[in-house]
Amino acid sequence: MQKVNTAPLSGFMQLLPEDQIEFDRIKQVILNAHHRNGFLSIETPIVHRQELLFAKAGSDTEKQIYQLEKGDHKLALRFDLTVPLAAYVAENQSYLNFPFKASNIGKVYRGERSQRGRYREFYQCDADVIARGELDIAYDAEIIGLIHEIYSELNFGKFTLRVSNRKLLNGFLNSLGLGEKSIEVSRIIDDAEKISEQEFVQKLQDLKVAQKTIDHITQFINIKGESTEIIAQLRDLKITDEQFLTGLSELQTVMSLLAAKNVTTAKIDLMIVRGLDYYTGTVYETILNDHPNVGSVSSGGRYDNLTSTFSNETFQGVGGSIGLTRLFSVLKEIGIIKSENTAPADLLVIPMSPDQFPFCYKLATDLRSQNLKIDTYLASGKVAKKLSFADKSHIPYTIVVGENEVETNRLHVKNMTDGSLTPLDEFLQNR
Amino acid sequence: MQKVNTAPLSGFMQLLPEDQIEFDRIKQVILNAHHRNGFLSIETPIVHRQELLFAKAGSDTEKQIYQLEKGDHKLALRFDLTVPLAAYVAENQSYLNFPFKASNIGKVYRGERSQRGRYREFYQCDADVIARGELDIAYDAEIIGLIHEIYSELNFGKFTLRVSNRKLLNGFLNSLGLGEKSIEVSRIIDDAEKISEQEFVQKLQDLKVAQKTIDHITQFINIKGESTEIIAQLRDLKITDEQFLTGLSELQTVMSLLAAKNVTTAKIDLMIVRGLDYYTGTVYETILNDHPNVGSVSSGGRYDNLTSTFSNETFQGVGGSIGLTRLFSVLKEIGIIKSENTAPADLLVIPMSPDQFPFCYKLATDLRSQNLKIDTYLASGKVAKKLSFADKSHIPYTIVVGENEVETNRLHVKNMTDGSLTPLDEFLQNR
Repeated sequence: MQKVNTAPLSGFMQLLPEDQIEFDRIKQVILNAHHRNGFLSIETPIVHRQELLFAKAGSDTEKQIYQLEKGDHKLALRFDLTVPLAAYVAENQSYLNFPFKASNIGKVYRGERSQRGRYREFYQCDADVIARGELDIAYDAEIIGLIHEIYSELNFGKFTLRVSNRKLLNGFLNSLGLGEKSIEVSRIIDDAEKISEQEFVQKLQDLKVAQKTIDHITQFINIKGESTEIIAQLRDLKITDEQFLTGLSELQTVMSLLAAKNVTTAKIDLMIVRGLDYYTGTVYETILNDHPNVGSVSSGGRYDNLTSTFSNETFQGVGGSIGLTRLFSVLKEIGIIKSENTAPADLLVIPMSPDQFPFCYKLATDLRSQNLKIDTYLASGKVAKKLSFADKSHIPYTIVVGENEVETNRLHVKNMTDGSLTPLDEFLQNR
Repeated sequence: MQKVNTAPLSGFMQLLPEDQIEFDRIKQVILNAHHRNGFLSIETPIVHRQELLFAKAGSDTEKQIYQLEKGDHKLALRFDLTVPLAAYVAENQSYLNFPFKASNIGKVYRGERSQRGRYREFYQCDADVIARGELDIAYDAEIIGLIHEIYSELNFGKFTLRVSNRKLLNGFLNSLGLGEKSIEVSRIIDDAEKISEQEFVQKLQDLKVAQKTIDHITQFINIKGESTEIIAQLRDLKITDEQFLTGLSELQTVMSLLAAKNVTTAKIDLMIVRGLDYYTGTVYETILNDHPNVGSVSSGGRYDNLTSTFSNETFQGVGGSIGLTRLFSVLKEIGIIKSENTAPADLLVIPMSPDQFPFCYKLATDLRSQNLKIDTYLASGKVAKKLSFADKSHIPYTIVVGENEVETNRLHVKNMTDGSLTPLDEFLQNR
C-alpha cells in the first residue's frame, strides 16, 4: 500500500519531544521577561484579509506571502507580527491604555526559498511599546534593556547589542549631498559586513558617489570606541543637518539611559541600518560575540507611525523581536543549545499488576500535589520492561508497587542512575 | 483617505488584553495538568501537504479545509491536531518511547459557516496516549481522569463526564439485526438529545427500523442509574454478540478504574456516540451540569489505529480534547469566565522626571528579582496623569519617586484602591 508522506514540509520545524522541552523553555524565558517588565500578552489571528497584509508589506515580502481563498474572501497568512499588531491597536485603541506595552509571540509564514536556518513557518517573539501620538525616547532604552535581560538569562554566551539611529545616518547622508540616494546608499551600508571593502566601494561608485564622499562614508561607519567617544567624534564632524543632530541627541539619550540601566552589552555601531521601509529612529541588532556568523539574534527599533493606512491617528512605537525558530535551529546546530532535560516526568510509579492500580493512583495524586510531575506505567508486562521505559525516557526515579508495598505501605524510590533505593519519606524530605 | 478594515475576520477570535490574560491562564491550567501527569508537549506545523490532511478527513471536514498553493505544492491548514499527531508518530516512531503520552495544544482551522460560538480559527488542547500495537484499557481511564482533574481545577461549576463504548453500541445494534444500518442508526442516537422523541422515532422509521426494535433502542439509550446498576442491566439483556460483551467488559473496567481514581464526575451514558469515522471503543463527552446547552466542553475516546494510511504498523490510542476558543467564548458570554485580573503589572514605579530614571531602573530591577511584575512609567507629564495610567490599567500599587525619595531612599507604596501609603520595606514583608 502506498503510504502518504508524513515528513514535515521543507522549512517547517517539527521537533522531537526532548527538543520541544528546550524550545518551550526558551520561549517561556522570553515571555516571563516580557511579563516581569509590564508587557501584556496579545494574540492576533494567523489568517487575515489580503488587503490588510498587502497594505503594509514591501514588494519583497509580498512575493513571500501565503495566500488562500475561502468563499468570497481573499485571505493570507501573516508574514510578521507587526502588521497584525498595527491592526489590533487601530481596532482597539479606545480600550487600550497608552503607552501600551505588548508581548506578541506567535508563528508567522514566509514562503521564502528554503535554505539552511531559514524557516517558512517560524516563531517571532515581539515586544513593542506603542503610544497614541508621541512616544518618549526612554522606551527605546526599555526595549533594548529587555533584550539584554533576556539574552543574559538565556546564557548563550557573550553578546553585543549594536545600536544606531536612522535619523543620524540619514542626516549624515544629507550632509554629504546624498539625500536623494540615501535609500540605496543605506542598503549598501547594511550589506557592508557581508561584502569586501572593494565591493563596498564599487557599489557606491556604481551609484556615482564621488571617491571623497565614499571615504567619508567609510570613515563614518568605522568610527569605533566607547559610546561617549563615538558621540564626541560625531559631534566633531560639525554637521549641522537637523536630522543628524536630532539622531545624535536621541542616540546619546538612549545610550546614557542604557548605561544607567547597566546594560553593559549595548554599543554604538554605525553600520547598523535594519529594515529600510520601516524604522525611523533608534535601530539595534544583537550578535553573539563568539558566533558572529549566526547573524543578528534579535533586532528592532523605533517606528514613527505603526498604524498608517489603518488609522487616522498616529501611533509611535518601538519594538524588538527574537526569531525563535531560526535561533533554536542554529544554536542547536552549533551546540550552544542542548536538549538535556528530556524526561516526561520526575518520577514513574510502576504497579506490578492491575491489582495495585488503586494504590498507585492515590500515590501518584499525592506526589503530584507535592509539585512533582508523575507518570504511571499502566501497560502490562514484566517489571524489567517497565523499568526500561523509565530508563529510555530518562525519568530519573521510579517507585515499584507490588502486593507487599500495598500491604505494608513501605515505599522505596529507586534512583535510575545508580540503582540505589531511598525510603519515600526520606526522598521527599531531601528534595 | 480610505482606511483598510482592521477588524478580525468573522470566526477569528481576537481578545483584549484582560481577556487574553484569562484565556492564557486557562490554557496554562490545561498544560500544567498534562505535564503533571507525564504528557510531553509536541508541536506540529499548521501547514501541511493537502494529501496528508485529505487522507484522514471525512467528506464533511474536507469541505471545511483551508487550501493554499505555494510553488508546486498543494498545501492546507490543519483542521484538527490528531492528523498531524498521526503523521508525527508515524514519522518519529523509532525515536519515541511507547506508550507515548502527547500534549498537543495549538490552533486549527475550519472554514465552517460562522455562527454563534463557532470559530474558524480555534485552539484545541489535546492529550493522547499512543501505543505501538495494543494499548492497555487503563489508559482510557487516564484520559478521562485527566479531564476530570482539569475541569475540577478550572472550577467552572459542576460537570459530568458521560462515558460510553462504541463496541457496546455496535454490538447492541448487531444483536438487533441492525449491523448494516449501524452507522445511520448511531448518527440518529447521537442526535437524540437535540430532537424530540417523535422526531427520533420518525428518523428510525425512515430507515425502516421495526417499531419493536425502535422500542429496544429507546430503552437502551435511556438506561440510567449508577454505573454498577447500568452494567447489571446491560448484562441482564443477555446479549451474546461478541462486540457487545467486549464493549461491556471495557466499559466496566474503565468505570471501575475511574472509581478507584475517585473520578466521581464520570457516569455511564449510553446516548454518547461521538465521531463515527473515528472512535472504536471508549467514548466520552463532558457537560457542565448547570449549563447543558453549552454542549460538550471536552470529548474524546479510543481509536484502534491512529496511523492507518501513514504507517504499516498499528498504533492504538486514546485521547481527549478541549476546544478552548469556543469554551472561552461561551463561558465568558454566560458569565462563568470573568476577566478580573487585568493588570499588566503588580506595581508601577513612577519617576517624577527623567532625573529619577537611574534610581527607578535599579528599584524596578530589585523588585522584579523579588518575583514582582513591575512596570515603569517613563512618559513625560504630570504625576496625576501618571497615577491615572496605573488606575486605568488596574495596577494595584505605585511608588512615586521624586528628588526627595532619591536623596533619602525612603520609599512608600501607594495602594491605588484606598490611597493608603505603606513604607516599601513593610510592603515587601507583608506580601
